Amino acid sequence: MRASLAGLLAFVFCLGWLGAHPPKGGTSIDNAMDTQLPLKTFRGMQAEAKGCIECHAKKNPGIVADWKMSQHAHAGVSCIDCHAVTKDSPMLTMDGHEGSKVPISVLVSTNTCAKCHEKEVTEFRHSGHVRGAVQIWAKANMRDLMLMVEGRNHPDLKHAPAATGCQQCHGSIIQLNKNHRPTPETWPTYGIGTAFPDGSVGNCASCHSAHKFDISEARKPAACASCHLGPDHPDIEIYNNSMHGHIFNAEGAKWNFNAAPGTWKVPDFRAPTCATCHMSGNAKSAVTHNVSRRLKWNLFMPISKLRTGGYETASDDYKYENKITIGNPLAGNPKGPEAARAEMKAGCIDCHNAQHIDNFFIMADKNIMLYNEYYQEAIKMRDELAKKHLLGKDMWSDDFQNTMYHMWHHEGRRMRQGGIMAAPDYSHWHGVFEVQQDIRKLRKIYAKRLKTNQIED
Amino acid sequence: MRASLAGLLAFVFCLGWLGAHPPKGGTSIDNAMDTQLPLKTFRGMQAEAKGCIECHAKKNPGIVADWKMSQHAHAGVSCIDCHAVTKDSPMLTMDGHEGSKVPISVLVSTNTCAKCHEKEVTEFRHSGHVRGAVQIWAKANMRDLMLMVEGRNHPDLKHAPAATGCQQCHGSIIQLNKNHRPTPETWPTYGIGTAFPDGSVGNCASCHSAHKFDISEARKPAACASCHLGPDHPDIEIYNNSMHGHIFNAEGAKWNFNAAPGTWKVPDFRAPTCATCHMSGNAKSAVTHNVSRRLKWNLFMPISKLRTGGYETASDDYKYENKITIGNPLAGNPKGPEAARAEMKAGCIDCHNAQHIDNFFIMADKNIMLYNEYYQEAIKMRDELAKKHLLGKDMWSDDFQNTMYHMWHHEGRRMRQGGIMAAPDYSHWHGVFEVQQDIRKLRKIYAKRLKTNQIED
Amino acid sequence: MRASLAGLLAFVFCLGWLGAHPPKGGTSIDNAMDTQLPLKTFRGMQAEAKGCIECHAKKNPGIVADWKMSQHAHAGVSCIDCHAVTKDSPMLTMDGHEGSKVPISVLVSTNTCAKCHEKEVTEFRHSGHVRGAVQIWAKANMRDLMLMVEGRNHPDLKHAPAATGCQQCHGSIIQLNKNHRPTPETWPTYGIGTAFPDGSVGNCASCHSAHKFDISEARKPAACASCHLGPDHPDIEIYNNSMHGHIFNAEGAKWNFNAAPGTWKVPDFRAPTCATCHMSGNAKSAVTHNVSRRLKWNLFMPISKLRTGGYETASDDYKYENKITIGNPLAGNPKGPEAARAEMKAGCIDCHNAQHIDNFFIMADKNIMLYNEYYQEAIKMRDELAKKHLLGKDMWSDDFQNTMYHMWHHEGRRMRQGGIMAAPDYSHWHGVFEVQQDIRKLRKIYAKRLKTNQIED
Repeated sequence: MRASLAGLLAFVFCLGWLGAHPPKGGTSIDNAMDTQLPLKTFRGMQAEAKGCIECHAKKNPGIVADWKMSQHAHAGVSCIDCHAVTKDSPMLTMDGHEGSKVPISVLVSTNTCAKCHEKEVTEFRHSGHVRGAVQIWAKANMRDLMLMVEGRNHPDLKHAPAATGCQQCHGSIIQLNKNHRPTPETWPTYGIGTAFPDGSVGNCASCHSAHKFDISEARKPAACASCHLGPDHPDIEIYNNSMHGHIFNAEGAKWNFNAAPGTWKVPDFRAPTCATCHMSGNAKSAVTHNVSRRLKWNLFMPISKLRTGGYETASDDYKYENKITIGNPLAGNPKGPEAARAEMKAGCIDCHNAQHIDNFFIMADKNIMLYNEYYQEAIKMRDELAKKHLLGKDMWSDDFQNTMYHMWHHEGRRMRQGGIMAAPDYSHWHGVFEVQQDIRKLRKIYAKRLKTNQIED
Repeated sequence: MRASLAGLLAFVFCLGWLGAHPPKGGTSIDNAMDTQLPLKTFRGMQAEAKGCIECHAKKNPGIVADWKMSQHAHAGVSCIDCHAVTKDSPMLTMDGHEGSKVPISVLVSTNTCAKCHEKEVTEFRHSGHVRGAVQIWAKANMRDLMLMVEGRNHPDLKHAPAATGCQQCHGSIIQLNKNHRPTPETWPTYGIGTAFPDGSVGNCASCHSAHKFDISEARKPAACASCHLGPDHPDIEIYNNSMHGHIFNAEGAKWNFNAAPGTWKVPDFRAPTCATCHMSGNAKSAVTHNVSRRLKWNLFMPISKLRTGGYETASDDYKYENKITIGNPLAGNPKGPEAARAEMKAGCIDCHNAQHIDNFFIMADKNIMLYNEYYQEAIKMRDELAKKHLLGKDMWSDDFQNTMYHMWHHEGRRMRQGGIMAAPDYSHWHGVFEVQQDIRKLRKIYAKRLKTNQIED
Repeated sequence: MRASLAGLLAFVFCLGWLGAHPPKGGTSIDNAMDTQLPLKTFRGMQAEAKGCIECHAKKNPGIVADWKMSQHAHAGVSCIDCHAVTKDSPMLTMDGHEGSKVPISVLVSTNTCAKCHEKEVTEFRHSGHVRGAVQIWAKANMRDLMLMVEGRNHPDLKHAPAATGCQQCHGSIIQLNKNHRPTPETWPTYGIGTAFPDGSVGNCASCHSAHKFDISEARKPAACASCHLGPDHPDIEIYNNSMHGHIFNAEGAKWNFNAAPGTWKVPDFRAPTCATCHMSGNAKSAVTHNVSRRLKWNLFMPISKLRTGGYETASDDYKYENKITIGNPLAGNPKGPEAARAEMKAGCIDCHNAQHIDNFFIMADKNIMLYNEYYQEAIKMRDELAKKHLLGKDMWSDDFQNTMYHMWHHEGRRMRQGGIMAAPDYSHWHGVFEVQQDIRKLRKIYAKRLKTNQIED
């Protein structure tokens, strides 16, 4: 890897702020009182950083103000520790800047974060989150969807839907122009699956926003809410509809979100947030950044399937094989779906008895299986229509295919996700209530096409 | 009632924590100084409770942490006071547990709450809230909706829509299996109209979530929001759209929601929440848990009607007659709809002059009556189509009936509720704007069916 | 102007609370210590106000409590300073009231606010906000929409949709009855473009709610959210979907919203709110109440156009010409659209580098132009259908026109506003994803009508 020198340098920096630097002048605790030196360990920043900070405090005061409040600043981690790259790095933006000779990049990838947060980045790499960007471009039909279907294949404007839409949550595959600057078509993005020029995938700043990178932010529903919303996965709406969200919304402003990593537990909070169930430690599962690990089902696919796939592979495919793949949609717990469920349930027990938990999941699982029944009927009709050449070429102009898409991608996800996260309005009114109307519409179109042997216009 | 012994026991417990217990050793205020005993009244918990607390603090720390912060704990009301039942109680889960010999139930019904909060439970019993669960099962067509229409009559999965949907807000009629455990099809639920095996109806924990049972929680919009949302009664969205919600969302985090019962008044808050208008005391109406009491209109029915029905009856029908009924949808103020309105207006005067209040309700009422005009036209068309056998058998596959349902149940409720709660976006864009398109669609279908004398396919 | 006497009086009042009154007894700083008088300037209220306050503290405690917390109260500005009018004022409600002989109005217009806040009112008058009410009534088809189309031309009920809907955000043209009281059809409203009987237009209380009139309220998204929401301009939803909203929702409760006018800057906040970008001062633009000033595009019109129109004119037309006009929909920055954009970008630089900002706006602009491509195709089809008499007379019953309306007014605004405010779910799923389906539907109807030479029924 071309990034290895930067990695080595960074490791040395890390040692610095971890206290490995000897205190100047060899002061020891023993003689501290005598010499009247303050009792402190050396925690200084890179000298180079002062220039960055002084100048950017004027140019971009928000960036410096954010950093000042961060744990990074308290630990002496500053601009240069994250933005410095080697001269030959694929991330390089400028070889020196305003008097400094340090080569830097405006981009910071998870490779950099992993220098100090290796465990978190590794877990994250095992989660479905890293599939976000690459899977879009791995699917030819998705690319068409954006450039041709939505972008009208317009020579100049066709990238606008992806750039203002998909990529802002999913992430992009960042491209640099010949001046080493990221292109407007691929950056800026806060997308969680962003693939960087150095081969690393993922974006810690999606949830821990720059330049504060706060642990408390990521523990709040708002951190997830800017992507997990809307017709196809209204997860923040689902949370607000649940008793968990009800309690958080009533009193969460007073809870303690600042506990140190791995120590955040009841009674810091009275009800779980997204992070509590999907990431926080419990009796059966350590704290993890692999948000797929406690999921029994894949609920975003047209047919709900058990997550039997182990770890996500999309990041490794990109980083080590230089391949853009759809990854492993059945990624979950390496021990299988029942282990995933057991790890999830181990969080519920803090506030609910076993009967409550078991009963709840029995019915939520049945609700998922009921959705499958609907969709399987639709598949059967669709396949028969296909065989008889009674499906339109453009699925978005074809009432059958369009309705079937919505029954899965919108209504069907709401039904399943609403049920499994205890949100009755989404399980019912936005979910099965609409799914049952969709299936009726599909049956009508199906019957008419079979009867007339043509596609209605 | 088989619960009478438990009731008697509980009454004794209550006397205990209310201070009726004589202090051990007969200490009086007179000699408190002499004996240097601390000045205190006896507020001890049931000895039995210590075992519960110690063990469950490990098993379910959230439950115990919640309780520790509750008024209950401060008053010495503990686990056993609410979960103890008689051996022959229909609520019984276990006859003794982990060394304790007290028979207990995992379920706690309003019968138990009423031992100390009788006034609140009685008012609640008079409100439409208690109709929630039983009315669903009283309507054969509603049962069909869930089991057949949505549950596909599937032998194993048919209960999933009701269990993950309707029942979570409306409540269920809890069934116990032969091991005295509540069935997955009927529990858990936080539904406000839950009917318990002991015959009592209602769920205090819907708004005062267990195990803290906080008065301040129920005064915040979030307490109502987890059920009063969505396409058919977007009440939290309506609140957020109103100037009341605007003010609450801007500064409510700093208001005082902890005032003692009956003392919560301006300037504890600057704008009303749901609880202020529908429950808090004002010049014409004492604080009440009968949320139907200040409502002039029934706005959820297809045709808006004045609430002339007095008190709700569904709870008494279930508790005393063992009947599952649709209750009294016109339940409101026992003195009639104008008295209801006057009691509501008496809250507005705190911040608005009489002209403002009168003008507002004049137009909101007209908006309700305007909706009726739309729906009456639809009824006329429907009845004529029915007479000519031009209505489909399955209403969800029939465009006329399906559209008419939505014009009432979704768009029409939004138009009416949006207007009466000062939410212009819901009165207009989500309301009348869609209703006027619905009526046009109905007219088109109606005309076509009359012309062709057949139902379009 | 008949209001000139009141204006003069008010000006004198202002001098008073600004400190122009000489301290009683001629105390100077020099001899303050000698005479031991407290160092204070005179800040008294109008004597008349005491009567108002004492009585209304009982009748309407919320009004008085609000005022007590206001900057107005601290500065000695009280009821009478805003509600007093001349006897012959068109705003007059009562010529004296409960023992006071001061003529008063229940209405307070921006004329009154401008007595002390002239700069803010002038800027506001230059913004599109003032077009809110008058433009509705200037468009014959809009009037029809409300009275005929939605109000069913019902003799008694036809004003309900406008009164409970449009006017609550847009504002009304307030009409008084013969008793000088505002009519229910036109008041109450918190609408921002309200036109008052004294000829002034606008409503400061839309964002700074009465009677606290707080600067911190208007800086929070909630102030904008009660109008900027819903299917046609989901701006609060867009904000919540953006990284800006994500950060505000996670930690905004702890930010400083109380900085003095013109001093509110990073690090008072970590992410911008609506007010930050559209109103707060930055390197290229002073703080302004002209929210149109930094807008490059008009994004609410069917075809997005550059804002080349300079200042808004609707308020002046009404005030000085007594004309109800549609105003100047291309109102923006007097120096043109590129100056508008530059003034907007000057705010971004606080937290983002120039490449980030430029890239972002390049793609957001392309997204807007892409929408235009869609709509232009629709116009072409519509015009051809019109020429061939293949458009229905009632646009709401005509599938082509109805779909085209939604493609513009709902989906198309979401696509454009979602993109320009960094909200991927609105740019994509609520935006272009639906727009691309709309255009397909339009093409189908168009083709069928051309083929059959008739309008489908």
